[in-house]
Amino acid sequence: MGRGPGDISTPARLADPGEGIGPDELALAARNHAMPPEALRYDVTPPGLHYVLTHYDIPAAEEDGWELAIGGRVRRPLVLGPDELRSRPAVTLRVTLECAGNGRALLSPRPVSQPWLTGAVGTADWTGVPLRDLLREAGVLPGAVDAVFTGADHGVERGVEQDYARALPIGTALGEADEVLVAYAMNGGPLPPQHGRPLRLVVPGWYGMAHVKWLRSVTVTDTPFDGFQQAVAYRLRQGADEEGEPVTRIAPRALLVPPGFPDFMSRTRVVRPGPVPLEGRAWSGGGPVVRVEVSADGGCSWRDAELDPEPADGSGRWAWRRWRFDWTAEPGRHVLGARATDARGARQPVRPPWNRGGFANNEVQRLPVLCAAVDDGPADDDAATGRDGPAAGR
Amino acid sequence: MGRGPGDISTPARLADPGEGIGPDELALAARNHAMPPEALRYDVTPPGLHYVLTHYDIPAAEEDGWELAIGGRVRRPLVLGPDELRSRPAVTLRVTLECAGNGRALLSPRPVSQPWLTGAVGTADWTGVPLRDLLREAGVLPGAVDAVFTGADHGVERGVEQDYARALPIGTALGEADEVLVAYAMNGGPLPPQHGRPLRLVVPGWYGMAHVKWLRSVTVTDTPFDGFQQAVAYRLRQGADEEGEPVTRIAPRALLVPPGFPDFMSRTRVVRPGPVPLEGRAWSGGGPVVRVEVSADGGCSWRDAELDPEPADGSGRWAWRRWRFDWTAEPGRHVLGARATDARGARQPVRPPWNRGGFANNEVQRLPVLCAAVDDGPADDDAATGRDGPAAGR
Repeated sequence: MGRGPGDISTPARLADPGEGIGPDELALAARNHAMPPEALRYDVTPPGLHYVLTHYDIPAAEEDGWELAIGGRVRRPLVLGPDELRSRPAVTLRVTLECAGNGRALLSPRPVSQPWLTGAVGTADWTGVPLRDLLREAGVLPGAVDAVFTGADHGVERGVEQDYARALPIGTALGEADEVLVAYAMNGGPLPPQHGRPLRLVVPGWYGMAHVKWLRSVTVTDTPFDGFQQAVAYRLRQGADEEGEPVTRIAPRALLVPPGFPDFMSRTRVVRPGPVPLEGRAWSGGGPVVRVEVSADGGCSWRDAELDPEPADGSGRWAWRRWRFDWTAEPGRHVLGARATDARGARQPVRPPWNRGGFANNEVQRLPVLCAAVDDGPADDDAATGRDGPAAGR
Repeated sequence: MGRGPGDISTPARLADPGEGIGPDELALAARNHAMPPEALRYDVTPPGLHYVLTHYDIPAAEEDGWELAIGGRVRRPLVLGPDELRSRPAVTLRVTLECAGNGRALLSPRPVSQPWLTGAVGTADWTGVPLRDLLREAGVLPGAVDAVFTGADHGVERGVEQDYARALPIGTALGEADEVLVAYAMNGGPLPPQHGRPLRLVVPGWYGMAHVKWLRSVTVTDTPFDGFQQAVAYRLRQGADEEGEPVTRIAPRALLVPPGFPDFMSRTRVVRPGPVPLEGRAWSGGGPVVRVEVSADGGCSWRDAELDPEPADGSGRWAWRRWRFDWTAEPGRHVLGARATDARGARQPVRPPWNRGGFANNEVQRLPVLCAAVDDGPADDDAATGRDGPAAGR
C-alpha cells in the first residue's frame, strides 16, 4: 500500500527478542478481554466474563430494522428479520468458544497482534435457527462451494478496507454434524452488543473467527471465497510467502481454576501445604476430551485427572468438560499445568507450536504456585499488619 | 519483605524509558478490561462492556448464606443478608464509575501496574440501601472517625497479604450529599460476579477503589484506617518516601465516541471529508460538567461543544453527560480530543498530571484520525479487493 494518507495500517511483523508489548497491542488488549481464569469454575460463563474479540468497532446494531439476506447460488433468496427467525424451530447449544489467537503472546518470537495469554475462551448457551434449515429453505443450487458470512463491523486491516467476512465449505454449512446456528440469544437473553447483537453465526468446534457477529448476509458462492479473513488472515504459515493452511477447528486445551490466592502484580498463586483440590475445564473442537493429565513440575511428570461424566443427553458435546485432581502441596515453588487429549488422539504439547500468525497455540499452561506455611511468607505477622507495607508499596 | 519463599511480590517501580508493557502488566490487562470507546454511545453501559478491575480473584460468592456485618463503634451491631437488605427502602442511582488508574499507561515514566489507557470507565444503574440508613440503624457512637469496608477478595500486594479493604470518613459515610449505597443490583438484575455479587459499596463521585466489592463488613472505627489500600496504595506521590495525598473524587474527563471506522492494529480512525458529527460523554466527581470543548489539532485550539440538558429529575447528577459537536473534516491527519470543565472550575489538562502511582491522569484524549476521500487511501479499489492484501497481511 504505502501510497500516502491511506496507509494507516502497519505491516504484519514479529516482535524483536525481549521486545515488550507495544501501544498498539495494548490498545487491543484493553478492549478485547479474556475470561479471568477463576471463571473456569462456572459451567456457563457469566455475562461479561466470556472472552471478546472485535476486529473493528462494535456496531450500533439493534433488532429494529435488522435484516439478514440469504442469497447467491440459491433458488429462493430470503430476507429475514430477527422476529422471523424466532418464529422458526429453535435449537439451543452449549458451546465453548475460543479465539484462534489464544496463546499468541506466549510465543517467541511473538507475532504482533491481539496479545492473548491463555484466557480467550468462554462457554455460553446459544439459541437460534440451524443454518442448514435456512439454506434448505432457500434451496442451494448445484455447484455451490462456499457459504460466505458477512458482518456489519467495518474497518481497515493490513491496508484492506472491509466488512468482516468469513466462509464455511457448503458441506459444513449444510451438514448435520456441525450444527451451525444463526443465533439470536445468548444464555437465554438477547445477544449483548459485543457478542453480535442482533444476529451472529455459531459454528460449534471451530475457533472464534468463524462465528461471524452482526450477521448481515449469507451468500452461497460457486467459487472458493478469497476475502481477507479467509485467504490472508487466519492461515498457519511458517514463512511470510507461504499460502498456508486455513485455521479451522479448536485444538485441545485444558486450563486450571487457579488454586489459592494471587499476588496482585505477578499473579503468582499462594497455597498452604497439604491437600489442595485442583479443578479445571478441558475442550477440543476435534472430538470429546477423553483424558486430562496434571503436572506440578512444569510438564516433567504427569498424573491422570478425573473427568466429570458427559451429560447423558448429549448436551455437553460442544462444551468444555470439568476435571478434578487431588494435589498434595509441599512447601516450595511449583509450576502447575494440565494437558488434554481428545478422542482423535490429539494432545496438547508442552512446547508451543509456532506459526507466523500466532494461531492455535495450545501449549500446556504454566501456572506458578508458591506453597508456603502461614508463618513462612506473605502471610507472616509483619506483612499481615502491613508494618513493612509502606516502603514496599511505594 | 525479601525473606525467602514468601516474597512473590515485586516492588513498585517505574518503567524505563521506551520499555514496553511487560508480562505482568499484560496479565492484568487481559483480565481487567476497559470499556471499548464506541460504548460511549450508550447512556447506560451494556453488561460486559463496563470496565472491570479486580485486585485479586473474583470470589466464588453467591447470595445464599452471604452476611454483611455492621459493627465496631456502633450501639447495635447488625448482621444482614441480601434478602434483609432488599426488604428495606431501596434507592437506584445512575453512577459513572472510573478507575483511579485510568490513563496510567499514557504516563512517562509509566508506573508499572494495571496499564490503563483511557477506557477504565462505565455507567450503571445501581440499586441498594443507603449506607447512612444502615449506620443510623446500628447507631454510630461518639468518637467515630472512619467506616471501614472489607471485601471477600483475598490476595497479596507488595508483600502484604490482605482482604481488600478501604475506608470513608464517617461524615461521608453518613452524609446526605454523597448518597453512598450498599448495592445488590446493577441495571435491574443481580450483581454480576465481577461487579461484586452479592453486595458491593457504591460511592458516587469517587474513583473505583472506594466502591468495595463482595462486601463482608462495615466497621466503624475511632482511629483513622491505615490499611494497605488506604495508607500505601491510592496515594498521590511524587517521591517514593512521601506520605502523599489520598486519591478521592473523580477528576473531570471527556471522551469521544470514535468517529468513522478503525484500522485493526493501529486503531487510527478513517473519516470521509465533509461534515462529521462528533459526540461523547463527560463527567466529574467534583460537580456537574458545565463545559466541554473540542480540539481537532491536538489541543492547540478549542471550540465549544453543545452539552445535552441535565435530566430535570436530577437523575443525572452522578452520571456522565452527553455532548455533541459538528466537525467538518478536511483531508489529512488530525488529532481529536475534548476537555471537560466542572462546576468547581476544574478543567482537564493537555499535559498529563504525573504521580508515582499513575492515578487520576485526566489528560485530554488524543484520538488520531485520517480524513481521506474514498479514492484516496485504504478504500481504493486495489485495497478493497484485497489485490495487494496477501503480501501486506502476512
